[in-house]
Amino acid sequence: QSDRVAHFTQDVWSLFTRLTLENNAVNLGQGFMNFPAPEFIKQAAAVTVNDDPCNQYSVPKGRLRLRQALSATYSPLFGRTLDPENEVVVTAGANEGIFATLAGYLDQGSEVIIFEPYFDQYLPNITMNGGVPVYCPLRIDSHVDRNGVVPSSAWRVDLDELRSKITPRTKIILLNTPHNPVGKVFSEQELRDIGRIAKENNLLIISDEVYDRLVFKPDVHTRIGALNEFWDRTITVGSAGKTFGITGWRIGWLMGPQQLLAPALAAHTRIVFCVNSPLQEAVAIGFEEADKNGFYERQVAEYERRREKLTRAIKQAGLPYTAPAGSYFVLVDTSKIRIPAGFKFPPEIASRGANFEMCYFLCKEIGVTAIPVSEFYSPENAELARDFVRLAFCKTDDLLDEAARRLQKVT
Amino acid sequence: QSDRVAHFTQDVWSLFTRLTLENNAVNLGQGFMNFPAPEFIKQAAAVTVNDDPCNQYSVPKGRLRLRQALSATYSPLFGRTLDPENEVVVTAGANEGIFATLAGYLDQGSEVIIFEPYFDQYLPNITMNGGVPVYCPLRIDSHVDRNGVVPSSAWRVDLDELRSKITPRTKIILLNTPHNPVGKVFSEQELRDIGRIAKENNLLIISDEVYDRLVFKPDVHTRIGALNEFWDRTITVGSAGKTFGITGWRIGWLMGPQQLLAPALAAHTRIVFCVNSPLQEAVAIGFEEADKNGFYERQVAEYERRREKLTRAIKQAGLPYTAPAGSYFVLVDTSKIRIPAGFKFPPEIASRGANFEMCYFLCKEIGVTAIPVSEFYSPENAELARDFVRLAFCKTDDLLDEAARRLQKVT
Ligand SMILES: CSCCC(=O)C(=O)O
Ligand SMILES: CSCCC(=O)C(=O)O
Repeated sequence: QSDRVAHFTQDVWSLFTRLTLENNAVNLGQGFMNFPAPEFIKQAAAVTVNDDPCNQYSVPKGRLRLRQALSATYSPLFGRTLDPENEVVVTAGANEGIFATLAGYLDQGSEVIIFEPYFDQYLPNITMNGGVPVYCPLRIDSHVDRNGVVPSSAWRVDLDELRSKITPRTKIILLNTPHNPVGKVFSEQELRDIGRIAKENNLLIISDEVYDRLVFKPDVHTRIGALNEFWDRTITVGSAGKTFGITGWRIGWLMGPQQLLAPALAAHTRIVFCVNSPLQEAVAIGFEEADKNGFYERQVAEYERRREKLTRAIKQAGLPYTAPAGSYFVLVDTSKIRIPAGFKFPPEIASRGANFEMCYFLCKEIGVTAIPVSEFYSPENAELARDFVRLAFCKTDDLLDEAARRLQKVT
Repeated sequence: QSDRVAHFTQDVWSLFTRLTLENNAVNLGQGFMNFPAPEFIKQAAAVTVNDDPCNQYSVPKGRLRLRQALSATYSPLFGRTLDPENEVVVTAGANEGIFATLAGYLDQGSEVIIFEPYFDQYLPNITMNGGVPVYCPLRIDSHVDRNGVVPSSAWRVDLDELRSKITPRTKIILLNTPHNPVGKVFSEQELRDIGRIAKENNLLIISDEVYDRLVFKPDVHTRIGALNEFWDRTITVGSAGKTFGITGWRIGWLMGPQQLLAPALAAHTRIVFCVNSPLQEAVAIGFEEADKNGFYERQVAEYERRREKLTRAIKQAGLPYTAPAGSYFVLVDTSKIRIPAGFKFPPEIASRGANFEMCYFLCKEIGVTAIPVSEFYSPENAELARDFVRLAFCKTDDLLDEAARRLQKVT
């Protein structure tokens, strides 16, 4: 095997999927929906798989109808017309879109700044392409009471710290808003501050905005690429999985100026060539219909209800947490939970630290699967992660209710 | 952009797709089907997109039902039971499977031997992962008359030449049988000879067998991984696109011993995480049904008819060609075709050499799209490619008939 993969451990998703099944736990771990996909999406797919040209290769940048639908959907949100021929690229999930962008930009030793906690796939996406991750932690405002509810906005970038991380090798700032796992929605001011640092240093911004449709009142999602001064240095990443609740379709997209997208498209063309065509076409139809049928508003209202249900349960269990402004995750502070002395951990868990042990305990003894947030931190800042686990609320009321019941016995 | 992608030119597939549309040419270029996908496959997909758990993430190695179907289908062909838990990995097309395998094995400077002509994506797949391609050309037996029909078996590996290419940095031999674009089906003896060289030098074999269902009598497909002495060093690559005529579904697979697949799976998990789930499930159903409904035999009979149609047309046009034993491609020798003096080529074509000019001429003036085989050769051996273009016959009778008419005016 290559040095590139030699240091990889078992990915946290597969590990906790397996533990969930083995322990018959309520799965609030991986962020997938256990409720049905929207009818109009499924109906669209049943049509497109029977529309034969849709069963063959698309061009690498994606099927025309999807690129047109993305342009129609996002142009108003960006306040400029996105050219469907040149300013949109369809990728095999947002994940492959980010991987391909990094492949298109990084050379051996290029540095990429990521904010901690970070979505764990960023790290191998950077290192597999020869890049070096540089960590800039979000830090919780000191005046916030960690015994209670922390607003996600209290997790902030220290701009001086960010500036101090920049070197001549820095090429990219990889942003994530709404943020997984914090649930923070970056304010326009925060984005302008970060964007200006990028501009002063001539950095590319990759803005992972896969949760852009899952932002709760009164917060609003700001797109850094929609701010005029940053358009020409920003690649924005989106996801059908998150937008329509179909995480298994593996359809994402990149949006930005043609010349910025070109290296990402060149890499994408060699990595996967193109994305599955029939589901691309169905997503196109999905966008066309969602535009008219009020889907986004209905969906966000449902997620607001789910968020209330889960945060209420966490509060009743006596645990502090961060109240998310966006995404479908809640960061929970587990420092009050006591694992009984003598509780046994298998080596695959013990070797990965206290945070994994906590999640193993929660899964096995409490019957609720959470994701250890240490997986979203570098070793150098692992201390900041120690007590946090992540719960997902992209789940049915039934499942959230059952999780609530089980969580009551935690403290 | 990175050095990794800086030298990439426009990929030959997108280029000739565009030229085809602009010139209203008969498209025998890219290997996709212009006829309907099998009914049982489409029906399966219409069901699975409505089966909700299928709309969410699968585990990185692929949905269980597909891994089971692959095991049931391929175990008899390998003469051993493939463990669906550990000896099969589902990838986002064979392309991503090969990319991920190379990512899992290559370090900076690792060498990979590929046989020329080679499927063009191999080259960036190797170099993007820090590898160095080492070219070993297939050479046509000198006693074969190039004015007539060359059997694809006449394209042979010179074993001494192959041996001479191995260095301490060689890690992998990347085989392709049935071979694109030559149509050669490697004999068991050839595979044993190559495999023994791999074994003597402790090399991994990646065997790209995506056309394994498209082998014409009397030839038979031999799987190098099914030869006992090579199982433990071989990763075999397959493709739903080629097996079922659904190139747009982007579902492929890797098969081999668990320990060989582990680095590829580790890389795959970070590159795409998982493959689109509903179409995976539909391919699983496809395999289950094909096993009973005689699909493979019917399909190969249709391809035999298409092959006859196209080779007859080429012969009538007065052009020498290689008769393929497998795949859906015919390699045509264009040395007799005279491009009129003064014929103009746009810079994007002229800059890519005589072979591209020939294909441009064929597309624009003759109205038939072919793929320039120079794209499948290294600069060092470009001389061998000069006169060859590739035509695809995964096309309807109507289209092949129209191509035949147009080709008559070529000499
Ligand atoms: C790579 S699978 C994990 C999916 C996800 O988006 C999450 O749960 O954070
Ligand atoms: C990468 S698209 C080309 C597809 C193909 O298999 C071919 O035509 O050779």
